[in-house]
Amino acid sequence: MSRVSLLSDLLASIGARSWFAGDEAPASVEVPEIAALCHRLVSSRGEATGVRMAAEIINGVRALDDKGIKRFFHMLAEEFSPDPVELAEAAGAYAAEPTPTSLAALQHVAEPPRQELFRRLNLAPGGTAELVKLRERLLPLVRKDPERLGPVDTDLKHLFQSWFNRGFLMLRPIDWNTPASILEKIIQYEAVHAIGNWDELRQRLAPIDRRCFAFFHPSIPDDPLIFVEVALTDDIPASIASVLDPARPVIAPEDAQTAVFYSISNCHKGLASVSFGSFLIKQVAEDLKEHFANLKTFVTLSPVPGFAAWIEALPQELRDRLEPAEKRAIEVVGRKDWQADPAAVDEIRSGIMSLAARYFLRAKRSDGQPQDAVARFHLGNGAMLNRIMHLGDPSARGLTQAHGLMVNYLYDLPRVEQRHEAYATEREIAASRAVTGLLPGRSGHTLKDVA
Amino acid sequence: MSRVSLLSDLLASIGARSWFAGDEAPASVEVPEIAALCHRLVSSRGEATGVRMAAEIINGVRALDDKGIKRFFHMLAEEFSPDPVELAEAAGAYAAEPTPTSLAALQHVAEPPRQELFRRLNLAPGGTAELVKLRERLLPLVRKDPERLGPVDTDLKHLFQSWFNRGFLMLRPIDWNTPASILEKIIQYEAVHAIGNWDELRQRLAPIDRRCFAFFHPSIPDDPLIFVEVALTDDIPASIASVLDPARPVIAPEDAQTAVFYSISNCHKGLASVSFGSFLIKQVAEDLKEHFANLKTFVTLSPVPGFAAWIEALPQELRDRLEPAEKRAIEVVGRKDWQADPAAVDEIRSGIMSLAARYFLRAKRSDGQPQDAVARFHLGNGAMLNRIMHLGDPSARGLTQAHGLMVNYLYDLPRVEQRHEAYATEREIAASRAVTGLLPGRSGHTLKDVA
Amino acid sequence: MSRVSLLSDLLASIGARSWFAGDEAPASVEVPEIAALCHRLVSSRGEATGVRMAAEIINGVRALDDKGIKRFFHMLAEEFSPDPVELAEAAGAYAAEPTPTSLAALQHVAEPPRQELFRRLNLAPGGTAELVKLRERLLPLVRKDPERLGPVDTDLKHLFQSWFNRGFLMLRPIDWNTPASILEKIIQYEAVHAIGNWDELRQRLAPIDRRCFAFFHPSIPDDPLIFVEVALTDDIPASIASVLDPARPVIAPEDAQTAVFYSISNCHKGLASVSFGSFLIKQVAEDLKEHFANLKTFVTLSPVPGFAAWIEALPQELRDRLEPAEKRAIEVVGRKDWQADPAAVDEIRSGIMSLAARYFLRAKRSDGQPQDAVARFHLGNGAMLNRIMHLGDPSARGLTQAHGLMVNYLYDLPRVEQRHEAYATEREIAASRAVTGLLPGRSGHTLKDVA
Amino acid sequence: MSRVSLLSDLLASIGARSWFAGDEAPASVEVPEIAALCHRLVSSRGEATGVRMAAEIINGVRALDDKGIKRFFHMLAEEFSPDPVELAEAAGAYAAEPTPTSLAALQHVAEPPRQELFRRLNLAPGGTAELVKLRERLLPLVRKDPERLGPVDTDLKHLFQSWFNRGFLMLRPIDWNTPASILEKIIQYEAVHAIGNWDELRQRLAPIDRRCFAFFHPSIPDDPLIFVEVALTDDIPASIASVLDPARPVIAPEDAQTAVFYSISNCHKGLASVSFGSFLIKQVAEDLKEHFANLKTFVTLSPVPGFAAWIEALPQELRDRLEPAEKRAIEVVGRKDWQADPAAVDEIRSGIMSLAARYFLRAKRSDGQPQDAVARFHLGNGAMLNRIMHLGDPSARGLTQAHGLMVNYLYDLPRVEQRHEAYATEREIAASRAVTGLLPGRSGHTLKDVA
Repeated sequence: MSRVSLLSDLLASIGARSWFAGDEAPASVEVPEIAALCHRLVSSRGEATGVRMAAEIINGVRALDDKGIKRFFHMLAEEFSPDPVELAEAAGAYAAEPTPTSLAALQHVAEPPRQELFRRLNLAPGGTAELVKLRERLLPLVRKDPERLGPVDTDLKHLFQSWFNRGFLMLRPIDWNTPASILEKIIQYEAVHAIGNWDELRQRLAPIDRRCFAFFHPSIPDDPLIFVEVALTDDIPASIASVLDPARPVIAPEDAQTAVFYSISNCHKGLASVSFGSFLIKQVAEDLKEHFANLKTFVTLSPVPGFAAWIEALPQELRDRLEPAEKRAIEVVGRKDWQADPAAVDEIRSGIMSLAARYFLRAKRSDGQPQDAVARFHLGNGAMLNRIMHLGDPSARGLTQAHGLMVNYLYDLPRVEQRHEAYATEREIAASRAVTGLLPGRSGHTLKDVA
Repeated sequence: MSRVSLLSDLLASIGARSWFAGDEAPASVEVPEIAALCHRLVSSRGEATGVRMAAEIINGVRALDDKGIKRFFHMLAEEFSPDPVELAEAAGAYAAEPTPTSLAALQHVAEPPRQELFRRLNLAPGGTAELVKLRERLLPLVRKDPERLGPVDTDLKHLFQSWFNRGFLMLRPIDWNTPASILEKIIQYEAVHAIGNWDELRQRLAPIDRRCFAFFHPSIPDDPLIFVEVALTDDIPASIASVLDPARPVIAPEDAQTAVFYSISNCHKGLASVSFGSFLIKQVAEDLKEHFANLKTFVTLSPVPGFAAWIEALPQELRDRLEPAEKRAIEVVGRKDWQADPAAVDEIRSGIMSLAARYFLRAKRSDGQPQDAVARFHLGNGAMLNRIMHLGDPSARGLTQAHGLMVNYLYDLPRVEQRHEAYATEREIAASRAVTGLLPGRSGHTLKDVA
Repeated sequence: MSRVSLLSDLLASIGARSWFAGDEAPASVEVPEIAALCHRLVSSRGEATGVRMAAEIINGVRALDDKGIKRFFHMLAEEFSPDPVELAEAAGAYAAEPTPTSLAALQHVAEPPRQELFRRLNLAPGGTAELVKLRERLLPLVRKDPERLGPVDTDLKHLFQSWFNRGFLMLRPIDWNTPASILEKIIQYEAVHAIGNWDELRQRLAPIDRRCFAFFHPSIPDDPLIFVEVALTDDIPASIASVLDPARPVIAPEDAQTAVFYSISNCHKGLASVSFGSFLIKQVAEDLKEHFANLKTFVTLSPVPGFAAWIEALPQELRDRLEPAEKRAIEVVGRKDWQADPAAVDEIRSGIMSLAARYFLRAKRSDGQPQDAVARFHLGNGAMLNRIMHLGDPSARGLTQAHGLMVNYLYDLPRVEQRHEAYATEREIAASRAVTGLLPGRSGHTLKDVA
Repeated sequence: MSRVSLLSDLLASIGARSWFAGDEAPASVEVPEIAALCHRLVSSRGEATGVRMAAEIINGVRALDDKGIKRFFHMLAEEFSPDPVELAEAAGAYAAEPTPTSLAALQHVAEPPRQELFRRLNLAPGGTAELVKLRERLLPLVRKDPERLGPVDTDLKHLFQSWFNRGFLMLRPIDWNTPASILEKIIQYEAVHAIGNWDELRQRLAPIDRRCFAFFHPSIPDDPLIFVEVALTDDIPASIASVLDPARPVIAPEDAQTAVFYSISNCHKGLASVSFGSFLIKQVAEDLKEHFANLKTFVTLSPVPGFAAWIEALPQELRDRLEPAEKRAIEVVGRKDWQADPAAVDEIRSGIMSLAARYFLRAKRSDGQPQDAVARFHLGNGAMLNRIMHLGDPSARGLTQAHGLMVNYLYDLPRVEQRHEAYATEREIAASRAVTGLLPGRSGHTLKDVA
């Protein structure tokens, strides 16, 4: 049965045209047809026609334009939510008499039919990847209309947390022997230090002092979920430029003392906040340690994405209470091309470092965590803020976001668990003396008060 | 940190010993310790220690004896169910005002924490397989105490239906080039026609007129979930003996006109009622068709497991209304070794076939489906009951269960969808004329009335 | 034992320094040391130290500069040839009395010890590839000094014909899922229509109407030996531009009627005249036919590398006897940018085609084969010269070599064997009527006389 | 073109029937037809029809019965040998004037056309394996008629030494995850300690203290060439029974101190004396050492196949000069079931050990090597005779061949090269003090004199 006939048969049989009578502007015929198929897929008792129906829906949804997809998500929000009447009844029954039976009944009606729909859409060839792309289209709409579309996202995310469970992911090396079809995605996904072309990619992967690892899901074997690039070095490098320099001295991996995680990129917006990054770094660190006995230090070379914005947002009154060197630094970094003036660079070193220490150690969000998103990620993993590097990243982005700062987070494997716990429960920020020593001394106040 | 110290640290810190104060008989210390770890695993904010904790729990649970595992499941039922107070509140709030927010809150508290626990246990190496084994131990206990343990099973099954979604399964051929470690499992799992040893296994897999296919899950790559054995033949065979006869004429696969699915076995009790069998047969049929253009007929050679029991259970008054030939057949099959007496075999042919036709076409359960479990499976897949074979299986089991009957179900690929629908919605039983013609004619009553 | 000590031990023990007393100019110490190891490797009775010695020699040879490698090959010519005295004796003994024993003795001394040396060098990791590179360095020297170095090449080539036997080669598809490390070699090796960068490579491999296949040797699994690029099309294309046009209409492979072999490249100079190209085209044609039932026509789109040179070399007296249109064509193609002048292109069509027909059908080498190397290859494979295309390749190289001509050779699979035989034994050139019809008519002479 | 028509066409065209006029008894028509194809294959200028012709010949030869195959080999000996006249001429020419040209000419005619024939037969699918089987059929005939068939074998062996060069072989583990199709060959090929069935095979492969490795050739990927079975143990075991005991304590591989090579089997008679066994043991030893750092000792547990025969063959006069304990031992082991009588076993210990020491250390062949074939193999590899074990193998074969003796050869990796050299050049037999101390003391004579 061809797609057209399947659709028309269906529409004929279930009177789908009635959807047109909605109060929305004249709609493309598409979404109602898709909706009809969705209902049919969810309600089909056997799974016999499932694969074909799922493929039809997936294809139909993929072809929807922005207006259509919005309508599709609205449809999911309205037609595939729990039945409020039934749910209220079940909730009432359970509230009245909490038994296993009334609980099961309540759970059954509380689970949105969307979840079963998504599970059945996964029957389509490539279904898992398509569902991830679906959420990528959903997320911007959720931001604009969280009340209406938030529940749809909740269900997709709930499913993904089950499906993209670490237990199902495969860690695979990415190197110059990896298929080109995957490597071109690495070029495309690299989010931290852009890879301009295949020659630059080769520079990242082929030298013997480089490693790259990615997580894959078995149902999406040709598309990584997240990857991390690693440089094997003698010491902790002072800037990203020294790491990426093609003329650097290349050391034999077995001689390396330090593994630098200098870039970590999530590949799919549709998997936002389905976290597996922490597993990646720690597993890669452990695997490397096993292979190269001389490796002693595992550090990141990380951006400080929120630093400039935080300074910008400091209210004047608090700004007045900064140290003179800090005030001076703020003044200088406001100038164009200050980074090209060695005297200026030198002059503001102590001020900028002092500001940075405040930013990381004192400036907190309402939940007690640091302002910096990257810091939250690594500290939450159990890493320690190890070193702050003035002008570690003098790229345009580095200057705009962080006035050129970069930092290291240190993964001290034997202490990672303990630090993770201390951060998770006490919001304790692990920082080296080199960093805590940067805080302005006994000056009688802290930026905590300030921010 | 070794297991012992992790456990004692933990118990010290959270006062786990208090569990001993329960009303149960003096318990092994094991389950409370495991329970403490389970609580910790579920409540840990990050996923940092998750892998290790999950492995500890898995190991601990695996070592539990029958008494211990029962206690463990009770613990899951009691300590990892939704909080009745919170849930009643949320249910009440939603009933009072059904908004997205109150719905989300209700859903959140309605999901048993067990589900998150199971998802996190999957972090352990081999976790997926271990959870399947866990359900295998749970199911017999559920049967005895469905009220208390049913909800635990509901959660495991819910998870498995998501994880063992057809979209995640891999179809792989099983042949004489398959690793021995997998083949020995085929010997062990074969549930229909036992495989006595490796030579018999070779007879099933190596000849060019034999095929075998299995579904695998990517996280359990060395253990099949379900497999089907196929014989490529000229015609539909009249008995299982002719299919398995080592001295049969072997035909070239490209000349075969018929593919006979003569054995299909589920491998894991822990996946009971997580159905993927229907996908297997249809995908194998389609794959075979693509490779061997001459294949025209796809049939099973199936047992009739409920036939003898159904006859046994017929009330006397209804039994009185059977045709004389049917009565005679019932009498003969009650004798020992009737199948060895050619005259007897011949005498009862029409009576037994007539009874069989009633059994398949008239005898229904309260839900309108046939009594026979295998019939429900294949008819539900969209197959047609094609032929009934007197003494198709004269093995001890065949005689005990089905007085020697075997049947074919025909998978007519272009009509499978339609038949599936007709069965699913109308309980329409697709049967060939050869079968419907066996029903006792205009005798004025049907066994439908009878049964 | 490190390399240095192994070498010095050895040299000490066998007095290798005596080689310095040779009559050659002051030599690098390298070659004599390598020579000593070579003798030791060949004469070692067991194979115990073989792997290490082979690796030492391979490394040493690879490091030799042009002067050193020449000396190394001279050393092989002198020190690893059959012993003339022994050989003369054995030859004499056999000539006197030809028995199995005297034959075996003669064969034994007639085989140059180089052959055993090469076989033992293959013990080194990557030895096979290194020996291929060795011959690549040898061949230019052989051309200059065939008397002295020809026998060394004979032995290497003899070995390669045994090792790179078609029976050992693996045919593998090259596509966008191929490892980048192999794909970068495709860019580098493409010898017919250059691939400028990775985007162009993607254009050659990723579209669904493109295929590429290569032969690999199991001991050099990451480096192809020869590869062919194929376009799947409706009709035989009239120019290479239309084949490579990124804006061409792309057809589904299963609809294609024609497979165009538009580029075939040998990858290793060191395998020159170790022929496997004919196998490649025919096997690819057969494999494609099996997958895509609609494919009916298998043609090349081939350059005519010797055409311009042949015209250039025509003696004046013979040139005088050409047809007027031919003379005119020769005149026009002598002008710069004639191909950009549509009138000129049109004017010379018949003349240039007529010349081309003479070139292919009449101009022969002393061995009776055509002048054109590409023609010899395809005709020798059993293909037919199918069509000559005026301005099929207006690239700079196409104009310089062939005044823009391209041709098709047709692989008519059922007739390939017969044509191969006719060409091999009778030098019969299979050509379509479209081609033979181009020959200047009853003009009373043929270019055969001319050339 | 079918086989029949190809053959008849061919025979018609080349008058093959004339072969019937030979002086041999009335022949099957087969061999002459095959011979005609062989000539055609070798003389075909291109390689176009090669694959098909090679397959025809291979199929034809495989179908030959014993008489036919003998005739086929005679045909190869007669029709595919160098032309004696041409060779004599070339030999004379070279003897007269030894130039590169005359050498090349001589080499060309000295190489039997058989070699090119064998290389071209390798074009057939599965050709390499077929050629190995061909030699398996040849070898028994060579033993009976070395004069006529020896040269044919020389050529096949020459080719195999080139093709089965260690550089082309792949070392692969054999374990319980290996395909059953390969494992059944292990059962079949095991030549030292028979494997009775699949359960015994599992006992050899699956336990964690067992390893097995095999060499494969890339063109015969489903059939091992040689394999070795290894037990990981604490100490050097005193008998094969203790190694194979299913009730032995199984140790973790990482704790093992000793790797015992207790069985090594060549798989193909057709590869006799194409040696790769020495590579296998040493590479396995090195690979194991790399994986399991605690491994310190690498020993064999080996049979002594020639011991009983050597005693049997001692001339009376020399036998008279043995020590009394030795004489007594010879007397006892002549009795039936002596090994079942503990007193007898104990009584002859010193005598039998003393005889064994003589056998290994004193009894030499004319070439200076020990009598024992297994000893020659391991000593030639650079191993040391480490220990002699009285009643190490009380199996029927062990008693018959070696009066129950087993021995260890120790592979002391750092000294293997040196010992290999000493043995290869000086016939120096490396033996432990435990072994040399067994020699009868200052008794004034040695068995060297004796034997």
